[in-house]
Amino acid sequence: MSTDFDTGVVVVGAGLAGLSTARKLHDAGVDVVVLEARDRVGGRTLSQTEGDGLLVEYGGQWVGPTQDHMYALIAEFGLETFTQYADGDNLQLADGRLLRYHGAIPTGDPIIAADLMDAMVELTSAAMEVDTAAPWEHPRAAELDAMTVETWIGSQPYCDGAKVWLRTLTRAIFPAEPGEISLLHALFYISSGGGLEKMIGIINSAQENRLTHGSMQVSQRLAGLLGDRVRLNSPVHRIDHDADGVTVHHEHGALHARRVIVAIPPTLAGRIRYAPALPGLRDQLTQRSFMASTIKMSVVYETPFWRADGLSGHMVGDNRLVCTTLDQTHPDRPEGVLVCFIDAAAARRALRMPADERRATVIEDLVTYYGEQARNPVAVYEKSWLDDEWARGCYVGMMSPGTWSTLGPALREPIGPIHWAGTECATKWNGYMDGAVSSGLATAEAVLAEIAATAEVAR
Amino acid sequence: MSTDFDTGVVVVGAGLAGLSTARKLHDAGVDVVVLEARDRVGGRTLSQTEGDGLLVEYGGQWVGPTQDHMYALIAEFGLETFTQYADGDNLQLADGRLLRYHGAIPTGDPIIAADLMDAMVELTSAAMEVDTAAPWEHPRAAELDAMTVETWIGSQPYCDGAKVWLRTLTRAIFPAEPGEISLLHALFYISSGGGLEKMIGIINSAQENRLTHGSMQVSQRLAGLLGDRVRLNSPVHRIDHDADGVTVHHEHGALHARRVIVAIPPTLAGRIRYAPALPGLRDQLTQRSFMASTIKMSVVYETPFWRADGLSGHMVGDNRLVCTTLDQTHPDRPEGVLVCFIDAAAARRALRMPADERRATVIEDLVTYYGEQARNPVAVYEKSWLDDEWARGCYVGMMSPGTWSTLGPALREPIGPIHWAGTECATKWNGYMDGAVSSGLATAEAVLAEIAATAEVAR
Repeated sequence: MSTDFDTGVVVVGAGLAGLSTARKLHDAGVDVVVLEARDRVGGRTLSQTEGDGLLVEYGGQWVGPTQDHMYALIAEFGLETFTQYADGDNLQLADGRLLRYHGAIPTGDPIIAADLMDAMVELTSAAMEVDTAAPWEHPRAAELDAMTVETWIGSQPYCDGAKVWLRTLTRAIFPAEPGEISLLHALFYISSGGGLEKMIGIINSAQENRLTHGSMQVSQRLAGLLGDRVRLNSPVHRIDHDADGVTVHHEHGALHARRVIVAIPPTLAGRIRYAPALPGLRDQLTQRSFMASTIKMSVVYETPFWRADGLSGHMVGDNRLVCTTLDQTHPDRPEGVLVCFIDAAAARRALRMPADERRATVIEDLVTYYGEQARNPVAVYEKSWLDDEWARGCYVGMMSPGTWSTLGPALREPIGPIHWAGTECATKWNGYMDGAVSSGLATAEAVLAEIAATAEVAR
Repeated sequence: MSTDFDTGVVVVGAGLAGLSTARKLHDAGVDVVVLEARDRVGGRTLSQTEGDGLLVEYGGQWVGPTQDHMYALIAEFGLETFTQYADGDNLQLADGRLLRYHGAIPTGDPIIAADLMDAMVELTSAAMEVDTAAPWEHPRAAELDAMTVETWIGSQPYCDGAKVWLRTLTRAIFPAEPGEISLLHALFYISSGGGLEKMIGIINSAQENRLTHGSMQVSQRLAGLLGDRVRLNSPVHRIDHDADGVTVHHEHGALHARRVIVAIPPTLAGRIRYAPALPGLRDQLTQRSFMASTIKMSVVYETPFWRADGLSGHMVGDNRLVCTTLDQTHPDRPEGVLVCFIDAAAARRALRMPADERRATVIEDLVTYYGEQARNPVAVYEKSWLDDEWARGCYVGMMSPGTWSTLGPALREPIGPIHWAGTECATKWNGYMDGAVSSGLATAEAVLAEIAATAEVAR
């Protein structure tokens, strides 16, 4: 391959990971080009103004304590945030009873609550023994990776109500059916988020803050720093590579560069054709990484009527279509908005329904939770991430059982001039916006270290 | 899309499924073109003459009773077969002891044998309750799909020796780590093969016959009937589709046709770009279908020395690199050949070794099983199917836990003018050569029925 390069590093994907990695390289004097398949930046964040000016968050949206990379960008760009509404009681559906509770852990039924506390402590302390940089090094990695979360839940002495809630938790957090992921993956993910309580709570937890003008702003500001180095509508379909560099083929041509950073989910990275073909261990890893199933529906009412009932708008369900809700009302707007998550198997059931039936079923669920006032929304905004060609699921790519323990190292190891980034590569807040940023920065650092070690001329 | 077609049906993939479907359509008067990525036909069969004329079977090779589609082709083409060598005793490694047994079920230790009989009866009878055309309709589908085979093995009252063997069996047959697949997938697969005993045995079982001049002959003869309708070196990267037809973009151009049949493993089918993008449910299914990990190594000796010791050359191991061996000696040749399967996690361990270390480890395993005479082979031929760009694993694509029960219908359902075929779609002998053929024929029938129903002019 010639060394007459078009640029120093090509970055594939203009989500938070790709933009963060590109920005760091750019700041260090490396010439970069970011190729993005979509007609926008932001990846799995998507903030859009609808109707007469309501901001709808179709994708990732919350930030919370210890997500320092995101807060640093928010501070740098001077972006406005507000606190997620969390006054009043949350709702919990347990054995058909609608119970009220306050705080992160459903305490509406004391027997269930006691079991939940036990389970959360047990899972969180087991998680802390998993090194998120190398889950395969856990002394019982093979055993924990050969057992589903469902098997773990089923084997515990908790009451049925607690087991139902643990299943709902799995659908809401990971998000996956408990039978789809291994206990090792679950513990890895809990470890990366700093423990279950931090992940499920609102105040002082991962759902504490929102960006007033949308989370996609962060990506837009990063892209602004990179100017015309970010090229939209440019899906990459092939990467030729040798020791000297790469040729990245996209919809409108090809770029020759010293290196490429592929900053998209592993399953999508596996769809690019590499020449020569990538090693079997890497390919088998990407075959075994799959995107979660999430549909996010924002249901808009004239007012946030639940607040008058002393409800927070946060609900944790059982096995209905709507898995959880949160109050998505914007502080500058009169409408009340409930954001509904349809997760895991429920998302698949939902997609088999015609759109109007799906919407009617969601409304029926909301009536169950919030009463008759929920029956007549003024608008509904829906996003099936399963159907998004350049995400193919949300929030995050997961490992199928047996993958971490036998193929894990292939997730992050570069292959010659090809490096990897994305929230799936993150060791902290994996699956979150913060993980995307930290993963992008870590990969940029690795590339800069390589450049320094080989005394290359940074272009 | 215009209706000025280049051909009636484009078939993607010239393995046994693609060639069988194309041949049936061709015989019915439909104009077909088969696009194959490789420089050869035959897919996951690969018969090659090495050295001074030794036929090496690098891929699928055996046929046995009830594989009627394969036998029909063998008869039609007048291909010669011979019986797999199975005289003498098989070997079984149990708790470090090397035991001899005869027949399909390891009976070297009577206590282990009794448990194995129980397990095989239990698994086979449970399997017969799974409808291979719709595993998701099993009344306990969700439960069976949320539990790994490892969890099932661990929960049984069998002795440790039996559990070790059940794990080896899983690695050899499915082939997968017991912690990678769900019990539902295992039962589906056993059901499709007509029961475990038929799958693991040699005589009167799935390993009974070999083709004297190689299994790839079947594909070559099928391709011969299609002539220049089969185009090699033509990987397909994009399929545009609408109600009128498809445009199939490949390495050297594009073909406009009424329909396309994608006859490659689901995970590879998922790497093609479809415009418009395929529904989320189909994409999520292909994300959750992954190829097994198999390395096949043929170790050649001056003579089949084990036969003099009264050994068949068939061995079932424990957790070493070599999972099973069979006598691969060709009846027309003097050399003795042991074919070694390195399956599942062992294949991944093996690929982390340099080639000479991998070979030395395999030889060391063979010395353990067959004694010092195994130390000095005259040649070794190896194929890592994980590293094969157009297979990415062997023998078969599997469903990750939770997939059959929530996404299963998307495996075979056509999407407009796009149909699917391949051994992964088969309801009988799924994963075998016979399943590839029957799947190809079934899809051709479905397409012919559509053509008849719409009174299209068959081109």
